[in-house]
Amino acid sequence: MKTRIGILGYGNLGRGTEIAIADAEDMELAAVFTRRDPSGVKILTPDVPVVSVNEIEKWTDKIDVLVLCGGSATDLPVQTPKYAAMFNVIDSFDTHARIPEHFDAVDKAAKESGHIGMISVGWDPGMFSLNRVYANAILPDGKDYTFWGKGVSQGHSDAVRRIKGVKNAKQYTIPVESALEAVRSGSDPELSTRDKHLRECFVVLEEGADAAEVERQIKEMPNYFADYNTIVHFIDEEEFTRDHSGMAHGGFVFRSGKTGVNKENKHVIEYRITLDSNPEFTTSVIIAYARAVKRMYYEGQTGCKTVLDVPPAYLCQQSGDELRAHFL
Amino acid sequence: MKTRIGILGYGNLGRGTEIAIADAEDMELAAVFTRRDPSGVKILTPDVPVVSVNEIEKWTDKIDVLVLCGGSATDLPVQTPKYAAMFNVIDSFDTHARIPEHFDAVDKAAKESGHIGMISVGWDPGMFSLNRVYANAILPDGKDYTFWGKGVSQGHSDAVRRIKGVKNAKQYTIPVESALEAVRSGSDPELSTRDKHLRECFVVLEEGADAAEVERQIKEMPNYFADYNTIVHFIDEEEFTRDHSGMAHGGFVFRSGKTGVNKENKHVIEYRITLDSNPEFTTSVIIAYARAVKRMYYEGQTGCKTVLDVPPAYLCQQSGDELRAHFL
Repeated sequence: MKTRIGILGYGNLGRGTEIAIADAEDMELAAVFTRRDPSGVKILTPDVPVVSVNEIEKWTDKIDVLVLCGGSATDLPVQTPKYAAMFNVIDSFDTHARIPEHFDAVDKAAKESGHIGMISVGWDPGMFSLNRVYANAILPDGKDYTFWGKGVSQGHSDAVRRIKGVKNAKQYTIPVESALEAVRSGSDPELSTRDKHLRECFVVLEEGADAAEVERQIKEMPNYFADYNTIVHFIDEEEFTRDHSGMAHGGFVFRSGKTGVNKENKHVIEYRITLDSNPEFTTSVIIAYARAVKRMYYEGQTGCKTVLDVPPAYLCQQSGDELRAHFL
Repeated sequence: MKTRIGILGYGNLGRGTEIAIADAEDMELAAVFTRRDPSGVKILTPDVPVVSVNEIEKWTDKIDVLVLCGGSATDLPVQTPKYAAMFNVIDSFDTHARIPEHFDAVDKAAKESGHIGMISVGWDPGMFSLNRVYANAILPDGKDYTFWGKGVSQGHSDAVRRIKGVKNAKQYTIPVESALEAVRSGSDPELSTRDKHLRECFVVLEEGADAAEVERQIKEMPNYFADYNTIVHFIDEEEFTRDHSGMAHGGFVFRSGKTGVNKENKHVIEYRITLDSNPEFTTSVIIAYARAVKRMYYEGQTGCKTVLDVPPAYLCQQSGDELRAHFL
């Protein structure tokens, strides 16, 4: 029997989840739940109902795993514990500093209801976290480096848009090539914030706005830009729409470590992703972990889980025999 | 209480295991077992006994995990099932084609004795296998590429040494930079054997040997060299000893995959390792998994396991709380 997936929230992540389900022969989309008027939500998959979230409790025996596609700021801290009381759930909660409290809330709800609540699935947190943990376990004496990009930072784009005179803006975070090379060489460089990433902004001005003043305000903005080398381009609306609507992203996780009687041997582990679509990659990770959620649930496990708790084989459709024969 | 590790076999892997234990505060070396005369085996760790393998049965209650450091060709197929009948064991069995039968033999012995037998731990099989499985689970519609090197291939070095007139030889497997770049670009290239790797040989000739004839025999050797571009250098013994005694190695695992309604989005995942010491990196992986073996054993699990069966958190000394707070 196929794994029946429900989606709550139909934005970029919801649509990405729907697409990822279509690529998994062992899964099917059971329903999309929305806070909007369901009649106004058109989904890609034929013959799958769009249902008001107010009706979700009627679906508890028709869904194996509910994928929560809300935002980390206000949606998921409420939704994940709430729905873990009724379903196995999975989210992509990505506010790193608040993961421990989110874990505790979801763990309590999921244990009480006898479900699995898997949190913080995606690439960072997610695949990057896994790579940090594996590499630290293997090379306990070493240094970690994470680089993000090239890709859009939503928070930084928002910050630029809040400046007076700015009509629209996109901010790209770009890892500095010479810093990547220094880390890759195993030289264990000390890298400042400015050494690691560039920030590049594409800005559409309101009519009559003062470009020099906008540029100054961007470059001097504390926390967001002041500690970085920042490049600002002013472009028109047409170019903005044509060239800056993509959702490409990526990044690097490195660990360099030493072994040997006198620590004479250096080793560098590098994990790198280059993504045309940030939300579709994130949801591809989520759907693989949804497979694991169902399996852990049928084993009798309950409570909050993260990617660190899941045996890799659980992500796969293939049997252990097949995996050992073809991938090991 | 510290995890008590036994080592069977004191070559490069045995010594690497000993060094990795010294870096793990939660582990201690209990004993080194040898098929040689123990009085002739000098180890690095003070006050740890070197014991004849004939006495190993007396140590069953003094060792949590026995690390088997023999070779995959003839040692491990016998040793791993044999000692899984008495101990939790871990090996680095790396004959990919024979993993299924090795798994079955170890599984039977370990289940009968109520132990864990973890096999094929290292980097390939091992970390590379993990990366293939994760990336295939995330990007089911895609292509895999594995590259090895730059590093010494023992099998190819041996093959060169068997040629008449060759006194000594080292063969380096080198990934072709343009092939790496093509894969990294997401263009999904079709790569022949020749496209992916170069072979570079450093050869010391016997006195009076015919260099041209040796070079011809190397380059035309079926399976080993005929399908590759091969570079042969003739050097003297002094240069050989000075420049070609290292154990550096490395490699790359890539998966490129497509997502999207019309498969319009490309993604590339790259895992890369650059190692000064192949055996010390391998044993660093083994010691992390030895930690997991003990944990799985105390949970009541038995039988043969591979890296695909182990939750990443089990490799770490840190608690789940610490891992979530610092690595997720």
